[in-house]
Amino acid sequence: MPDTTTPASAAVSASLDSFFSPRSIAIVGASASAGKIGAIPLRYQLECGYQGKVYPINPARAEVQGVRAWPSLRGVEAPIDLAVFAVPSAQVDGALDDAIAAGVRNIVLFSAGYAEVGADGAAMQRRLADKARAAGIRLLGPNCLGFMNVAQDVYATFSPVVGAGKARAGSIAIVSQSGAFGAYAYALARERGLGLSWWATTGNEADIQVADCIAWLAADPATRVILAYLEGCRDGERLKAALALARAHGKPVVAVKVGRTGLGAAAAASHTASLAGDDAVYDALFRQYGVWRAHGIEEFFSIGYALSVGRLPPNDKLGLLTVSGGVGALMADDAADAGLDVAPMPEAAQRWLTERVPFAAPRNPVDVTGQVTSDPGLLEATAQRMLGDGGYGSLLVFLAAGGLSPSMAPVQTRMAAALRAAWPDRLIVFSTLSHAPLRAELDALGCPSFDEPGRAVRVVAALNHFRRHLGSGAAAPAPTPVLPALALARGTQNEADSMALLGAHGLPCVPCRAARDADAAVAAAEALGYPVALKVLSRDILHKSDIGGVALGLADAGAVRAACARLQDNLARHAPQAVREGFLVARMAARGGIECILGAHRDPVLGPVVMFGLGGVNVEVFQDVSFRLAPVDRAGALEMIGALRAAPLLCGHRGQPPADLDALADAIAALSRLAAAAGDSLESIDINPLLAYPAGAGALALDAVVTGTAATAGPAA
Amino acid sequence: MPDTTTPASAAVSASLDSFFSPRSIAIVGASASAGKIGAIPLRYQLECGYQGKVYPINPARAEVQGVRAWPSLRGVEAPIDLAVFAVPSAQVDGALDDAIAAGVRNIVLFSAGYAEVGADGAAMQRRLADKARAAGIRLLGPNCLGFMNVAQDVYATFSPVVGAGKARAGSIAIVSQSGAFGAYAYALARERGLGLSWWATTGNEADIQVADCIAWLAADPATRVILAYLEGCRDGERLKAALALARAHGKPVVAVKVGRTGLGAAAAASHTASLAGDDAVYDALFRQYGVWRAHGIEEFFSIGYALSVGRLPPNDKLGLLTVSGGVGALMADDAADAGLDVAPMPEAAQRWLTERVPFAAPRNPVDVTGQVTSDPGLLEATAQRMLGDGGYGSLLVFLAAGGLSPSMAPVQTRMAAALRAAWPDRLIVFSTLSHAPLRAELDALGCPSFDEPGRAVRVVAALNHFRRHLGSGAAAPAPTPVLPALALARGTQNEADSMALLGAHGLPCVPCRAARDADAAVAAAEALGYPVALKVLSRDILHKSDIGGVALGLADAGAVRAACARLQDNLARHAPQAVREGFLVARMAARGGIECILGAHRDPVLGPVVMFGLGGVNVEVFQDVSFRLAPVDRAGALEMIGALRAAPLLCGHRGQPPADLDALADAIAALSRLAAAAGDSLESIDINPLLAYPAGAGALALDAVVTGTAATAGPAA
Repeated sequence: MPDTTTPASAAVSASLDSFFSPRSIAIVGASASAGKIGAIPLRYQLECGYQGKVYPINPARAEVQGVRAWPSLRGVEAPIDLAVFAVPSAQVDGALDDAIAAGVRNIVLFSAGYAEVGADGAAMQRRLADKARAAGIRLLGPNCLGFMNVAQDVYATFSPVVGAGKARAGSIAIVSQSGAFGAYAYALARERGLGLSWWATTGNEADIQVADCIAWLAADPATRVILAYLEGCRDGERLKAALALARAHGKPVVAVKVGRTGLGAAAAASHTASLAGDDAVYDALFRQYGVWRAHGIEEFFSIGYALSVGRLPPNDKLGLLTVSGGVGALMADDAADAGLDVAPMPEAAQRWLTERVPFAAPRNPVDVTGQVTSDPGLLEATAQRMLGDGGYGSLLVFLAAGGLSPSMAPVQTRMAAALRAAWPDRLIVFSTLSHAPLRAELDALGCPSFDEPGRAVRVVAALNHFRRHLGSGAAAPAPTPVLPALALARGTQNEADSMALLGAHGLPCVPCRAARDADAAVAAAEALGYPVALKVLSRDILHKSDIGGVALGLADAGAVRAACARLQDNLARHAPQAVREGFLVARMAARGGIECILGAHRDPVLGPVVMFGLGGVNVEVFQDVSFRLAPVDRAGALEMIGALRAAPLLCGHRGQPPADLDALADAIAALSRLAAAAGDSLESIDINPLLAYPAGAGALALDAVVTGTAATAGPAA
Repeated sequence: MPDTTTPASAAVSASLDSFFSPRSIAIVGASASAGKIGAIPLRYQLECGYQGKVYPINPARAEVQGVRAWPSLRGVEAPIDLAVFAVPSAQVDGALDDAIAAGVRNIVLFSAGYAEVGADGAAMQRRLADKARAAGIRLLGPNCLGFMNVAQDVYATFSPVVGAGKARAGSIAIVSQSGAFGAYAYALARERGLGLSWWATTGNEADIQVADCIAWLAADPATRVILAYLEGCRDGERLKAALALARAHGKPVVAVKVGRTGLGAAAAASHTASLAGDDAVYDALFRQYGVWRAHGIEEFFSIGYALSVGRLPPNDKLGLLTVSGGVGALMADDAADAGLDVAPMPEAAQRWLTERVPFAAPRNPVDVTGQVTSDPGLLEATAQRMLGDGGYGSLLVFLAAGGLSPSMAPVQTRMAAALRAAWPDRLIVFSTLSHAPLRAELDALGCPSFDEPGRAVRVVAALNHFRRHLGSGAAAPAPTPVLPALALARGTQNEADSMALLGAHGLPCVPCRAARDADAAVAAAEALGYPVALKVLSRDILHKSDIGGVALGLADAGAVRAACARLQDNLARHAPQAVREGFLVARMAARGGIECILGAHRDPVLGPVVMFGLGGVNVEVFQDVSFRLAPVDRAGALEMIGALRAAPLLCGHRGQPPADLDALADAIAALSRLAAAAGDSLESIDINPLLAYPAGAGALALDAVVTGTAATAGPAA
């Protein structure tokens, strides 16, 4: 069911410090009966060493779990930063009134029975959220498992997963829309020894969304890495702002977003009350904001772990050091897939190694062979050469089962310590079977380790990604020029109006004019210069050639008149209902361009999006298109072009001249600015074809349709 | 360096039973000094409970490790099935003489210093292998870690990995070309509790190759699953025969093959002495023989484990049962990627569930929600409905961290037992965080379990793959008609000879004739009927239109004569050195066909291969081509066509008529038979274009080049 409780504003204004770092916590519905929802958060809170005040609220008892209790929030008579509502939904209204009266600032609402159960629940949730908002109270939930601030010993959750054992404190924050996933993720983190700073599930998101959590975590000093699990998004602008904030603070965000496929999206839609949006647009969002989209839960945690333990490598070059040539080749395969630079060792360093180990493979992967068992110093000496002479930003050392060997494990730790001391800025990753104590030692030395070499390679790729987006050398995203807002006219516009609008906004359009009748068409043709193309003009006809509505290469007035008659006939015959707006006369375009398509549309969640692809089968059969959130600058537009599998066709394929990529990029950027300015009034803009001429010869839009949203009130821009 | 020790014959004739199930084992170089290469296999052998005879061989001691020793193999005077050579390479020749004298049947040779160290070593290895072969002795190695027959307590290895702890006995066999990988794999199997039947590393493969091991394992009663690690292959025919044998015995083979990418292939080539071959052709081999090519080590073991514990599902339908809607959607994404059929539950079963749990998602994924904590029977009841009413061949149950919960873990075991009893033929997989005891219980019930739901989905896909190839319903591969062997003429043949050869072998070729001069060309044109195409004929000119060597649509004798003069001129001007063979006159093909390319070539390792793709950018830019080992039948050819990303273009794209797929498939099959018959005399055959006309209208080859290998002696076929 659709969620109608979303506040209109996208701004993340009020700080959530008092929420997530509360100095006092009241637990409404605090219970003494172990296992009850009201008992669990109180028990967690009492056991964890929290330094603030805790106020159990229970009308029937003076004491709960050995702590003084209050009958109502109103009775506490002290500041309450956070109230945890662990009561059935029927009691929530009353508790909220009490909270307002008591000046409570923030509420966690576990209770279910709201938007997730249907329209009545959604209405109830909306009333609740409105009332809280009016009172200046922030709300997490309803229908959530709450949150934990591990760094500050806050456990505002009733999830039994914490009772089964606490995850250790660390620098990874996890935020999950789904409670079940959140609990699973907590257990996974605990079992793998990952250190958590913070954890939350956002449930129905009546107020606080995943985006708000990310924005708060961006500035949380305990958090170095943000792991976010999304099923959808209620407010795209808020999410964009939060991701921008995380990037500005240099905090990597790793995301799992369900609904990559049609099947997954359908399942997610049936599950979550939030709008899905187009998954390809999420990909664009993540790419543009430097988020790493994890391919699965395993990768989600592997990368989170490596970010919390390791450092971002100073360059893209990856050195592969192995005791198995075969696994070296496997890692090289994975590195090639991940686009990493497996540059060869310098010649001198290669000679050094083959002098020491004649049958070593010295290039990269560097295979020191089984020789390491008889010459344990070989490994470290080779690694030093690789980091020194080779200059690799990342070093991945594969030691097979070495970590389980009582003789090899200490070699590994000593080596890690020596390399870390000599090369503090490098990413050093081990792939070896090992037990928890060795892993912990390597972690402490800033060297993540993995059983599986393929996973280690993928992690190196992710950390390079974050270096490019967040590292000291990363360029801050260039501010994209923004046009003043404009409102597109409602509905579909005819080709003449569409081309005029695009031309006025910097898109290279073929010179063309609207003409009411044959006389006007001839006049237009004379003004434009022969030969011309003639098309019927009607906002109702999208595929003009299908109804015989196009005539090309008309060389003189006679030909134009004849074509006018013919086209009018065809229109009358094949589309008698279509509104008639006369003709469009256009100068014939020069031959030789490559057909591209360029478009924009408004994603229901993430807003204006620009799309680019090559014409014909590339788009229709291979679905080879690039998306970006609008606006993009020229560099972003060039990246879009380069991301196409068909990009070689634009770069001088089979002796053809390379296309004018700058002109294409300028056209993409111009359309993206227009789309961004059109905002909510944008339904879609399609330019098809956009001809790409050889370098220096520009690009040219031959046909276009602009469609404003039906709801837009404004006149044509 | 190339390996020249491969025996020419591909037949796997002699049984390896006495090798891998020896009744007696001699250890040459048996030592008492712990840690020495000669001490380790004896220690393993003595400790493991082996029932056969063990003969330590040591010229200096009457007793080694508390067991009577013999000074030489000659002194044993009892049958020796297997001799393990744990001596430096300098002593190997003498030991081999002793072995021959003593009638030893099989030898494991650990020693290094052979083909892997250069030409001298390769020559030494060749002499050794020849001598052993002449004496009827089979050889594993040199430069290998040996083998273990876990089921029969044979430990003919010196790898320290076994000393660190033995893997439990089970039904998984591992064969690895690489020793380092083999040791790593053994440790991984042990750490994960996988049960092994057998393990071997083949090293330099002077005699026994990975293929021979697979062939033996095909009939080994202890082995249910074969995991094979390949870096290359010395004998493609042997590998094909072994894989066919494994399939005939219904044994799944999971393979890791390095060198997927150029980078990985280069690393593998520098590491292994075996020929690489084209990786795409390995893909074809694996596909055709029903091998699952694992994407990494993790998947290699996950699938091996699931095959050893679970069963092959009776149908492709996958039911997803989850306690988290979000993870349900994630699994649906993964299932869609894997091409699984996530069919919805029947309506009645959906109603049943929503009556019981109003807010459940009943379709598929089936989300029973957190309700399971208060209603533990819900999970099993839903699963029963899914297997019963839903008829799902596979059921994947996601329980988050449930396996770690003292209350939920027993629910899970009870459920597994009940489902197994009620549905013995289904594949039931759990994804839950759990500890080893729960996993072992689920394993014992035939239900594999995984931490990560994505991995579980991938495993279900693999087991469905094996059902299709090996299951009771799997069709035995149809015998492909084989032509009598034929020898192609050496070198490149001109278009006329090429077309004639193809036409004679059932390929639909445009009617055409060779003509020595203009008079003959006119005669040919009259015989074929106008209009005709004219081309210069020369085996030296592959791209005739580039030199102005093609004239199309010639309507009469005059046009033909004029074109002859023009083409001859062009040839003289642009390719004066080219051999002149006159002209080819061809009937003009009907318009409207889709351009395809069809080819064959001989892979240096795996032999004749057939290739199909669509013309133009599909092949050149998108590399969208299908390969299969030749021959293929019509069904295999249709599968090749369907595997193209561009396949929709042949199936009636944008209102065009669908192409004549049967005619295309017949052409592919015909060329594949010709390629198979040509065998070693085949260098390449290229048909470009092959026009695909609308269904019923056939296909037509317009141009072709046949090239025989330079070494071929025979006349033109």
